[in-house]
Formats: sequence, C-alpha cells, structure tokens
Amino acid sequence: MTKVGVLFIGALGYIATTVIAGTLALKRNLFPRTGMVTDLYHFEGLDLVEPGDIVFGGWDIRPDSPYESARRLMRNGQLPIAEILPFIEEDVRHVSLNLYAGTTANCGMAIERLGTGEGRGECAPLLHLIGKLRNDIRKFRERNSLARVVVVNVASTEPPLDLHPCHESIEDFEICLERNRRETVRASTLYAYAAIAEGCPYINFTPSNGALIPALVDMAERRGVPVMGDDGKTGETLVKSALIPLFLYRNLEILSWEGFNLLGNMDGRILEDPGNRESKVMTKDRILHKTLGYSPHSAVHIHYVPSLDDQKTAWDFIHFRGFLGAKMSLQFIWQGYDSLLAAPLVLDLIRLGDLSLRRGERGALLHLSSFFKAPLKVHEHRLPEQFRMLLDYIRQIRTHGGIHETFVQH
Amino acid sequence: MTKVGVLFIGALGYIATTVIAGTLALKRNLFPRTGMVTDLYHFEGLDLVEPGDIVFGGWDIRPDSPYESARRLMRNGQLPIAEILPFIEEDVRHVSLNLYAGTTANCGMAIERLGTGEGRGECAPLLHLIGKLRNDIRKFRERNSLARVVVVNVASTEPPLDLHPCHESIEDFEICLERNRRETVRASTLYAYAAIAEGCPYINFTPSNGALIPALVDMAERRGVPVMGDDGKTGETLVKSALIPLFLYRNLEILSWEGFNLLGNMDGRILEDPGNRESKVMTKDRILHKTLGYSPHSAVHIHYVPSLDDQKTAWDFIHFRGFLGAKMSLQFIWQGYDSLLAAPLVLDLIRLGDLSLRRGERGALLHLSSFFKAPLKVHEHRLPEQFRMLLDYIRQIRTHGGIHETFVQH
Amino acid sequence: MTKVGVLFIGALGYIATTVIAGTLALKRNLFPRTGMVTDLYHFEGLDLVEPGDIVFGGWDIRPDSPYESARRLMRNGQLPIAEILPFIEEDVRHVSLNLYAGTTANCGMAIERLGTGEGRGECAPLLHLIGKLRNDIRKFRERNSLARVVVVNVASTEPPLDLHPCHESIEDFEICLERNRRETVRASTLYAYAAIAEGCPYINFTPSNGALIPALVDMAERRGVPVMGDDGKTGETLVKSALIPLFLYRNLEILSWEGFNLLGNMDGRILEDPGNRESKVMTKDRILHKTLGYSPHSAVHIHYVPSLDDQKTAWDFIHFRGFLGAKMSLQFIWQGYDSLLAAPLVLDLIRLGDLSLRRGERGALLHLSSFFKAPLKVHEHRLPEQFRMLLDYIRQIRTHGGIHETFVQH
Amino acid sequence: MTKVGVLFIGALGYIATTVIAGTLALKRNLFPRTGMVTDLYHFEGLDLVEPGDIVFGGWDIRPDSPYESARRLMRNGQLPIAEILPFIEEDVRHVSLNLYAGTTANCGMAIERLGTGEGRGECAPLLHLIGKLRNDIRKFRERNSLARVVVVNVASTEPPLDLHPCHESIEDFEICLERNRRETVRASTLYAYAAIAEGCPYINFTPSNGALIPALVDMAERRGVPVMGDDGKTGETLVKSALIPLFLYRNLEILSWEGFNLLGNMDGRILEDPGNRESKVMTKDRILHKTLGYSPHSAVHIHYVPSLDDQKTAWDFIHFRGFLGAKMSLQFIWQGYDSLLAAPLVLDLIRLGDLSLRRGERGALLHLSSFFKAPLKVHEHRLPEQFRMLLDYIRQIRTHGGIHETFVQH
Repeated sequence: MTKVGVLFIGALGYIATTVIAGTLALKRNLFPRTGMVTDLYHFEGLDLVEPGDIVFGGWDIRPDSPYESARRLMRNGQLPIAEILPFIEEDVRHVSLNLYAGTTANCGMAIERLGTGEGRGECAPLLHLIGKLRNDIRKFRERNSLARVVVVNVASTEPPLDLHPCHESIEDFEICLERNRRETVRASTLYAYAAIAEGCPYINFTPSNGALIPALVDMAERRGVPVMGDDGKTGETLVKSALIPLFLYRNLEILSWEGFNLLGNMDGRILEDPGNRESKVMTKDRILHKTLGYSPHSAVHIHYVPSLDDQKTAWDFIHFRGFLGAKMSLQFIWQGYDSLLAAPLVLDLIRLGDLSLRRGERGALLHLSSFFKAPLKVHEHRLPEQFRMLLDYIRQIRTHGGIHETFVQH
Repeated sequence: MTKVGVLFIGALGYIATTVIAGTLALKRNLFPRTGMVTDLYHFEGLDLVEPGDIVFGGWDIRPDSPYESARRLMRNGQLPIAEILPFIEEDVRHVSLNLYAGTTANCGMAIERLGTGEGRGECAPLLHLIGKLRNDIRKFRERNSLARVVVVNVASTEPPLDLHPCHESIEDFEICLERNRRETVRASTLYAYAAIAEGCPYINFTPSNGALIPALVDMAERRGVPVMGDDGKTGETLVKSALIPLFLYRNLEILSWEGFNLLGNMDGRILEDPGNRESKVMTKDRILHKTLGYSPHSAVHIHYVPSLDDQKTAWDFIHFRGFLGAKMSLQFIWQGYDSLLAAPLVLDLIRLGDLSLRRGERGALLHLSSFFKAPLKVHEHRLPEQFRMLLDYIRQIRTHGGIHETFVQH
Repeated sequence: MTKVGVLFIGALGYIATTVIAGTLALKRNLFPRTGMVTDLYHFEGLDLVEPGDIVFGGWDIRPDSPYESARRLMRNGQLPIAEILPFIEEDVRHVSLNLYAGTTANCGMAIERLGTGEGRGECAPLLHLIGKLRNDIRKFRERNSLARVVVVNVASTEPPLDLHPCHESIEDFEICLERNRRETVRASTLYAYAAIAEGCPYINFTPSNGALIPALVDMAERRGVPVMGDDGKTGETLVKSALIPLFLYRNLEILSWEGFNLLGNMDGRILEDPGNRESKVMTKDRILHKTLGYSPHSAVHIHYVPSLDDQKTAWDFIHFRGFLGAKMSLQFIWQGYDSLLAAPLVLDLIRLGDLSLRRGERGALLHLSSFFKAPLKVHEHRLPEQFRMLLDYIRQIRTHGGIHETFVQH
Repeated sequence: MTKVGVLFIGALGYIATTVIAGTLALKRNLFPRTGMVTDLYHFEGLDLVEPGDIVFGGWDIRPDSPYESARRLMRNGQLPIAEILPFIEEDVRHVSLNLYAGTTANCGMAIERLGTGEGRGECAPLLHLIGKLRNDIRKFRERNSLARVVVVNVASTEPPLDLHPCHESIEDFEICLERNRRETVRASTLYAYAAIAEGCPYINFTPSNGALIPALVDMAERRGVPVMGDDGKTGETLVKSALIPLFLYRNLEILSWEGFNLLGNMDGRILEDPGNRESKVMTKDRILHKTLGYSPHSAVHIHYVPSLDDQKTAWDFIHFRGFLGAKMSLQFIWQGYDSLLAAPLVLDLIRLGDLSLRRGERGALLHLSSFFKAPLKVHEHRLPEQFRMLLDYIRQIRTHGGIHETFVQH
C-alpha cells in the first residue's frame, strides 16, 4: 500500500497537532470529514490519498512531544481533542519517532525565544543547515518507506523578508546561499529550498514571505515540484472574501472596513511582536484594495488576548454608502477555534499537493487560491471566483484524461 | 424623445417615494448612481432607459400626495430626502397628476385598515375592477405620450393566496374572474392581470404570491410580456445568499441559522399581522433549505419596532460545525435604510424589464434572479451564481446581436 | 458536625446536576469559588454552611441517575464537568440514594411528556401527593441525620397558574386542597406546601408562579419559614438590570428594548411550548416597565436552538433617544453556559436561606432580590439598589448582634 | 435678570457648537431636555441657571464662525442640527461677537496644525499669554453684563503633560510661569490658570491632564473657585462603569476586556496622533484596574474612521470566568453621536459648576464624579456609586439649608 509522508515545519504547534490528531481520529471513523473541502462530492473519484495512508513527522524548535502538545491543547479548552485523545494516544506518541530539530535562523527574536532545544544551529553555514534538512527528509522517507513526501509550513509567522534582486533567480540566490548571506533568508526559506530540492511539494500555510520567494518558485517549476501559499484563509479574511462580492454586485461603495482579530494562542503571542505582525497584516489587508479597484479606509488589527487560548474572535465593521449617499453598515463577529479551522484545510492541501505531484504539475498551484489569504501569482481574491478555479481544475482533470497525465499550469 | 412610464402599486409608500425622489435627484446630478446594479460597467452600451426619461405614476389607497409622503419620510429621519427635496419639490408635486385610486380587494384586514380614500371598490365585480385598472394604465400612457409602461408592485405584503387548481391555467382562472370568485384573488392579482393584458412588464417587488400565479405567468408568456418576482432582496437575505456559499465551499455544516429582523416602517407594521407576515417569512426562509441540501434548525423572525422608522436592523446567528465536530459561530448585524436599499434595485428592474420588453423576451426573466428573495422559476439562491446568470445574459446580448433582436428565455 | 440537606425539584436537570457536581468539586478544592456571591469578602464571618457540609437529594420524573445526567451534560459540551467527573464520580453516584419520584400534577403537557417513571401520581388526591412529598423530606432528613433541609425548585418552567381568590389565604387554599381542586395547583405548589409544612426554606429558582402564591407566603410567615423567588437572574435580565440605571442616571429615553434569547437545553425545549414560555416572558419583561416609569416598545423573545446545548446566547437591541431627539443604540451579546451561571447562585441561596432559617427570619427574604428576575414583594429591579439591599442586610446582622438572634423582615 | 456666561476652549468644535445650538433650541422649546441629568426630578427647586439665561463665547484657533461650524456639523450628517438651524440662525451668528483668538502653546503638533488664525502667540511669554486670556474673560463679562462666567475645556486632546515637582504647589508653579518655562505647561494650563485667577469655575471635559495640575487645584481651593474634570464620560467608558459592578456583585472574574472605539470627527483625527491618544487611553483604561482590585488583560483602542463623522461606534469584548472555571463572554456595541452625547452633560456641568460657585464650594467638585472618566481626587469608578454621590450632595443641600449657604467639600 502506498504511503504518503507529511513533514510539518512547526510540528508541535496547535495546527500540526490538530491535523495529526484529527487524521488519526478520521482513520478510526470517530468523526465525519466535516470541514474538509476534498470531502465534497466534486472530488469523488480523484484518487486522493486517504487520511489513513498518511504518515506524519516534522521539525520543531521546542523540546516537547506531539502527545504533550495534544494534552496542552486539551487543557486549553479545545473539546474535541479531549474526546479523541484516549483513542489515539498510542498513534500520537508514535509521531515522536519522526521528529527532527528545527532551525530558527533569522526568524526574529519573538520566535527565537521559543526555541530551547538543541540543534537550532543558528551559527552553522546556510548550506550546512539546508543539508541537514534534506537529510531529515531522506531519513523520514526511508524509515517509513514513503512513496512521496509533502512539506507543510505551519510554524509561527516570521517577520517579512525584504526582497533583494538576488531573490529573483535561483542562480543568484544560490550564490547568496554559498556566500552564507544570512540576511537574505528566513528559516522558512531554508525549509522550502530543502523540500523543493528533495522533490517534495511545499505548502506555505503561514504568511511568512520568506518561503516562496520568486527564486524558489522558479526552482520548483524547473524541477517539477508543485508549491503553493501564502497564509491559510480560515477566518476573518474568508468571510471578507465572501462578502466583498456582495458590495461589488450591488454597486455599494465601501467607505471603511475595520477588522479586529483577537487571538489567544501561540500565533497570537508571536503576532504581538510588531515585526512578525507586519507579515500577517500584509496578507490580510491586501484583499480589499485588490478586489474593489479603489481603496476605502481600512485596517486590520490583531491583538493577543491570552484567555481566548485556541479560540479566536473577530469583529469587522463595514461602513458603506448606498443610494443617494446614505451611509449604512454591516458588522460581523466570527468565533472559532483557530486550529480546528486550519486543520482540515491543511489536510486538503496535502491531498491536493500530492495529487499535483503525481500529475506532474509544477510551480504555483493556482487552482488552490481559495485556500489562501495571499495566493501566489493569483490576483483573484473573491471567494466564489476562487472556488470556481478549483472546480474548473477538477473538471479539466475529468475531461482531459486520467490523473496520471501531465498537466501544466500556465 | 422616447419616454417610459412606471406605475407603482403603493405609489405613496416609502419605496415608491424614494424611487421617485431619487430618480429626480439623479436627473439633476445631485448624486452618483451608487447602489444601482445597472450602473456597473458591465451594463454600458445596453441602451437602457435613462432615469431622466422615466415618468412616474401609480395607485394608492391612501388620500395623500407624493410630496407629503416625501416630507413624512424626511421627518422620520431619512437624511438624503431632507437634502434633495428642496431641489425637486416641483417635480415631485407633478407626480400627483398620475395618481389613481387603488384597490384592496381581499388584501387582509391589516392593509384594508390603511385605506381611507374612495375608489377602493371592494364590492365591485372583479372584471369591473380589472377594467378600471386597465383604463388607468391607458390614461397614464396617453396623457404622458409614453412608448412603454412598466408596472411595479411595492405595496404592503398581502397574506398568502392559497393556490387552487384554477390558478394553473389562464383559461380556468379567467372563469373564476368572470364568476367573481373573490377568494381566488388578492388585489395584487388584479393589478398583475391588468398590467399583462395591457402589455406592461410586471415586477413583483413584494413577497405577495397572489401576483405571479402560474396562470398569469402563462398569460405573460403567451402575450409576450416579461414578468419577474418575488420580493426584492435588499438586506438580511442578501447577506445570507452571499454567506451560504462560504459554508458550502468549506464543507462546514450549518447547525442553526436564526435571523431576527427589526423594522420600523409601514412594511414592519403590516408584517406585525401574522397573516401578512407569513408571506414574508416564506420567501426569506426558503433559501437555506434549497441551497444546502439539508435542513438546519432555522427561523426568520420579523418584529415591528416603530422607533426605527425607515431603518432596519437584522441580527443573524449562525451556528456551524467544523472539523472534529467543533461548534463555532458567525453573527452579523445589518443596519440600513429599507427604502434606500430597495429604491436603486427597483430602478434597475424598471430599466431591465423595459429592455426585455423591447427585446421581445416573455414570461419569467430568470436572469434577474439575483434581485429577488424567491426568484420565479429559479432554484439557484447563491448570490454569486445568480449574479453570473445576469452577466451571462448580458454577454449573450452582446454576442448574439443587437438589443432589438428577439431573445427567448428557456 | 452539622449537615444541611438540599432537596431539588428537578434533581436530574442540568442546574441541579451542576450544583451537585460543582459542590463536590469545591469540596475537593478543584476550583476556587468564582461566581458565588457568598464568596465575596462581605460575607466573611457569617458562619454560612460550607459546601462540604451539604448533602444533596431531590425529586425527578425521569428514570435516570445524577451520574448519567452529569455524563449527558459532559457529552453536550460543558467542559468543566468533563474535567471534574473522574474525581467525583463516586460521590455523584451516591446522590442516587436520596432520589425520590417526582410529580407532574397539572404542569402542562410539555413537562408531562418528559416523565416516564413510576410514581408521577397524577391521579392521586392532592393531599395524598403532599403527604408523599412530606414523607420524602422526613426520610431524607433522617437517613442523612440532617440538622436542616432547604428545598430548591430548579424544575422546568410550568405554565402560569391563574390566581383565584382561594390563593389569597392559607385557610381558603387548604379547603381547595381538601376538595382536591386540581386546577388551583401546579406541581410546584404541592412541593412548596410540603416544604413549608416541614419547616424547610423554599427557594423558587424558576419562573413558575404556582409555587409562591400568597397563601403559601402567608403560611411561611406564620410558621417561621423563609421563602424566596422567582426565577434566578443569570443572564440577559441580569445585564438589563445593570444597564437600565445608566439610562435613568443620564436621562436618556429608552425607545425600544428588544431581547432575543437562544437556548439549547431542556429549559429551552420546554419554553418552546407557548404556555410554559408565558411564565418566563412575564418575569423577564416586567423589569423594564417597573423601573423606568414609562413603557418603551419592548419584547422578550425566547427561542429553542438545540445545537446550543447548555450554552445560551442573547442579543439585545436598545434604541434610545438623547439630546435634541437624536436616536442612538446599544446592543449586547451575552454568551454563557446556562447551568454554570445558575449553579453558584443556587448555592448562595441555599447558604443564605439556611442562614435565615437559623436566624428566625420568616416569609419573603427581601434582601435576596438581586438573585431573582421577579423578586417576591420587591419593586426594586435595578441591580445596584438590589445589591445594596443585600449589603444592608449583612451590615444589620453585624451591627445588631450575632447571627443566632431573631431577625424579622418587615 | 441674572445672566451667566460660558467661555469654551475650542468654541468652534463639534461639542461647543452642539451645546450652543442645543441651548438655543431648548430656549425656543423645540425639544425636551432629554439627556440632561439636571432635568431629572431630583434637581427640581435647586435654582440652577436656565438655558435661556446663558450667554456663550469662547476661544478657538481656527478662523471660522459658530454658524459655519454648525453648518459643517449638519453636512456631516448630524440630523438635529439640520432641523433646528433655521430657527436659531441669528442667535448662533451672534455668538461670533464673543469669540477670541486661542493659543496652542505646547499642545502637540497635531493640534498646532489646526490653527491658522492670528493670535496663537506661541512665542509670547507665558505670563503675557495668561494676561491676554484674563483680559478676554473680563471683556466677555463686561460686554454682556454677566453675573458669573464658567470656563469649559472642550478643545482637542493634548499630549500628556509630564508632572514635575513644580506642579505640586502654586508658589513653585508661578515661578515656572515667571521664568517662562514652556515645557511645564500645555495650552490648557494657561486657560485654567486664567479662569481660576478670574474666579471662574473651570470644567475640564477633555482628558488633557495639563489643565488641573495639583498646583491649580490648590489655587482654586485657596481662591474659592470650583473646578472639576477630567474627560466627559459619554460612551464606552460610561457603559463600562455600569457593567463592571455586575461582575463584582456576581463574583465573576474578568479575564480580558478589550475595547475598540471608532471615531470620525476632529476628536478622532487628533487622537490618531500617538501623543494625543496617550492622554485618552490613560483616562479610559484606568477605571478597570482601579475598580476590580486586580488587573485583567485589557486594552482600549481608538481608531479614526473618517466616514463615521460625528458618529462613534465602540465594540467591547469582555471575557470572564464563572463557576468551575467556565469561560463566557459579554460583548457590547455602542453607536451614538459624539457631540450629542457630550453636549447635555456639558450643560449640566455649567449649571452645577455655577451652583457651586454661588454656594461657595471650592476646589474639586467630588460629587460630579459620575460625569467624568477620570474624576479628580475620586477613586470611585462604579457608576451607581458615583451617581449616589451626586444624590447625596443634593440631599445635603436640601437638608442643611438654602443653596446660598457655604458648603465645603472634604
């Protein structure tokens, strides 16, 4: 039986833990696949990898175990974990075997403070760090006899990486790596490089722009590796991308769109740091201006409220102008569990990334735009249009032949 | 210059008054066309009737004038009217010349209590009432030298009309009219019959199901008259139809969707009556079940809160289930001016109804589904899909020839 | 060591279960006493009964056990129970020994449908039913060697009992009992009679007005038994009673106060029945008119939303008028666990009811008004004033001597 | 007839304009006194100055007129002004006669950028500036034959003034003035000094702490002048101070209280400047910690949203812990017109400040604490307790003799 491996960057975080625990629970049929897009009838017959055939592992900078992480999540009020943990305890413990020491090279102090384990290797040359990560991937593949491996970044948000000319082509960028120019990378860049070099699809579920720099997308295209990002669209931005079309269709003028996000988990704590927050606000705020064709007053605020733990609460105030200049408003309040919103999408992206690899698709997977706040190379931010891109992709597979045929994105 | 006439059923209500005053304000360039769908770039070059070329008139059962109605609206806190009334006073007063006595035949007591003028004619035979309405249309057309006339129902909601076998074909229904079987009609049925008989497009902006009964849609098809309804989609249901796709795309299970609508205008007062409210709740509630394919716990509540005047406030609580059975929620609060939300859509429907008449379209105008809560003969309730139907229609016009060619909906 | 017994009417419901489980958890110091008013420093030194010295029992009409009830609560998403149940399982099971068959005499069909156990005794004469209940109390007292017993009604809301002249005096009412005039009682009336006859303080935590009819309050005064009710103030009405003073102090005119309560537990299910809901809406709606001195447009709506389980969500829309006639609004959204809000107050009332019994207080305990939506014989509904009544009471105890002295309420 | 004068600092701002226009409207009985605390029955017979006997004037740094300011307010959507302006136009124009050039000395750049008129006098010596302001007061008093003058600060918020030892006593502070040490004053300090020196009660309706520094309160006490501040409590903080007692009375633990204020007027624009905002956040945030006795996670955010104009919208998210550690929440949304909320309170403070002057009260008017976010010398922030202080004051006046007797605050 073919097994597919998944390596998480941030394997002890809430999202990775929820994906791992959730997949094991699905395997045991403890829950239906609610929340998974690939469970919709449109995806039937596509031969996607089954949750039960996925083997998990990953990197983290904390000296902990997936089981302890799951227990922490439980204590912080995430009820489903409390229910399922007794049934999957052994399997969760087993994931520890596939855990590797992560790197925090140039991630910003907020993240570096998290790391306490050995092997962070900040001082090692960049090529050495990449070599270590590639070796981890190979060990994971061999130990578990895996057909394919997908790498998924669910680590904390890094500060933005300032783009240099050297980020434009893979040749120039590799010179930077050789010369050990640390300021041209974030940790996520190294992971992405290692994944692509090893032929593993790379999914950037975080806003960190250091991962899918043009040079690496270029490298992915040349080497036939699918990649996609940035930043999973799980909450406020998801609602936003569903509501913006309403105002467009009705020719209502948005005057102001103010969004306030309260978060209580590690993600929120890291985003307290202005540097790291900048990445997030950039991916969240972009959508409005790009979609409307004009720029209303708008701001996205993120605040860390520890008592919320894994719950997040967002309040958006939308002030708009209608007929005869009348001002009206729409407000929404979104309350959800951050990692439970993210986890099924991560599973979808693993399944669809693996499909793309098998189909010979390369570079940015444009049809996955609906999953991301800032989809790579896609200017469409309206949710209905993005979802249509996904359906068109499936239709094309069904029409133009079996899933093993080559399919190239333009 | 070609003039197009519009006759409102409920010509002294807030919506008609706002359409009339707003159109006059647009004519004088006091405001841009914000809120009008037909102002979007997609509609350019379609040769739609210009607001300045529309002549207004209508029926009402209250002994009042459009100018007095506009002043009442102003006193009740609708700011734009206060600003524009001085500039358009004379034109608004002029509309009185085209005002005709309305009928309340079998509308329910809540509405009948509103009527105090002469000419309600409840006792006259049905054919006599229809004859009177047809005569009104002809007088309006001649006095104002109109090329075409569109009839728009913006009267208060009637109680539902129980459908009989005799409503199925126009032949059977005409027998009912001849036999004066009053229980088989509401006032709106008579207006619709008169409009279609006179070759006027009929737009049912209210939930009253008495207007577009199958027999009359049949009659419209045979006589080459376009019709469409029911119930303009201006607020809570509009947001609903934009948000439902989000839950569908993400495979999130809606557990409960509870909607609470607070209204302060005449519409709200009439909807206090359980009979009349039934019509409204039916058109609002339908969308969820039709779109999801399953039936979550759901209710739509409408309450009359006089202090709100023309403002309406809706609170919706959406409880949904995500990954691993976790329950989460989305709430929204919609605050707008009822008649300012409705008026630009009414103008759109006048322009598009008139276009359809000129193009020889007949029967239900399916491409207008996005404008209605319960679109006639359309099962699609998702806003993005409905809007696509409208864009497809425009594309078809552009592709298949000039707007004067015949175009038949299937 | 002195033990105090508590008998719940509705001993298998969510509130009773949470009080029982919570008290056992407090006894084991698993949690601080957050949410208990009597844990405030003002109450120090009053010699209130300690949670560890309370013995629980009660009546119910369902054939179930407190342990099963606790597990049901846990499955329905009430997290704390999930955490504490393993530690207190044995003690909870022990409560079954003190469980007695309840009666549903004349409670309304919604409640009677719940009952499936034996001993509901609807057909037995009223005096016989009372005798059975008194006997239960005596058995409970003896079996557990209890110094005192407090009876607390946390059963489902009954439909209102229409007050007759015979409810005015205990003599007349006892004639009704003898003549077995069932229409003059609800089940709660019988429980209250039995409790008072046995010298047990009776706390009516429900809106059911059948319990503390004037005749029974009269009886309590004569026999030296403290009683209090009606309807624990745990959520929307609590917030209301804190916010109304704001509008009073600032001379702002409330135009409309619309409240919407979504409930998912048994309470909500019973309140779906229009008869039972009437009791609830009466106690909730009264406060506004009584406190303001004028009657704004106002309504309290209660809806059953099963997916909420023990959570309740209330949305209140308050429309008010300020300076120069300007209309403004305040909205609030209250989200809490119904039984976790109620349970600590029930514990407070047990402790304070027991204190009153020891102090020789008799009849309605006016100083407990802040705990109730419709406090017996108290016209003050503003929360700050009600809380002051409680503090004044404590001050009086401290000033006028030890807690064993007689204290009579006027 | 005795006339009382009022000089506003910021006389062309929205609040002053609304007070002036509103008072003129009350004089003509166009509206009842809704929103004025002194209109409550408790204040009857206190011989407060009647609105019709107040003469307005003031300082501003903008070259404009009260009439133009009123028209600007009207254009920005404040409906009441639109209704009343035609009736009071002449009286509003008359106020221009009492307008004096303001100073922006050391107010922060955000405010200084507003000023374009002459007479800002930033370079003049401090004593010279004070002399000019005192002269303005005397001219105003004489020209209008006024018995008494009250000075009210409704100017934009200044950045906080760092307190020096020299601010502790009036002797030391006067040395600073003589030595022209500009860093020890804000503009508001100079106004306050001038007012007190001229025997005028000084009301600090803004958060600017530069006005009522200890030295000036000391000076007010010695010279027999009443003063009070800081920062009118009109919205979010008002609701907060009404809700905090609820959590205290019920022993519920507040975990987080996050407040978000969206403002669109000049106040909001000035508060965009971090320096000026600091003053505001300090007065708003203080209340929670002072009242609870512990410090929950809490932040107050203020954002400028121009489209809101004079409306403000606040969303507060309160996360609290109840019985058995359960987390629950209360949210509120406050939507009001900033200046219409403030204006009646300013009128109240003028009337009560004038009363205190006549009664010989001196220094801080502690009984006015309920009007302020950060009441001078008062540690009580709970609204019910603050209102009780006001009622106690009135009771004392009624009990201890006529209003002309001396009354000294302790």
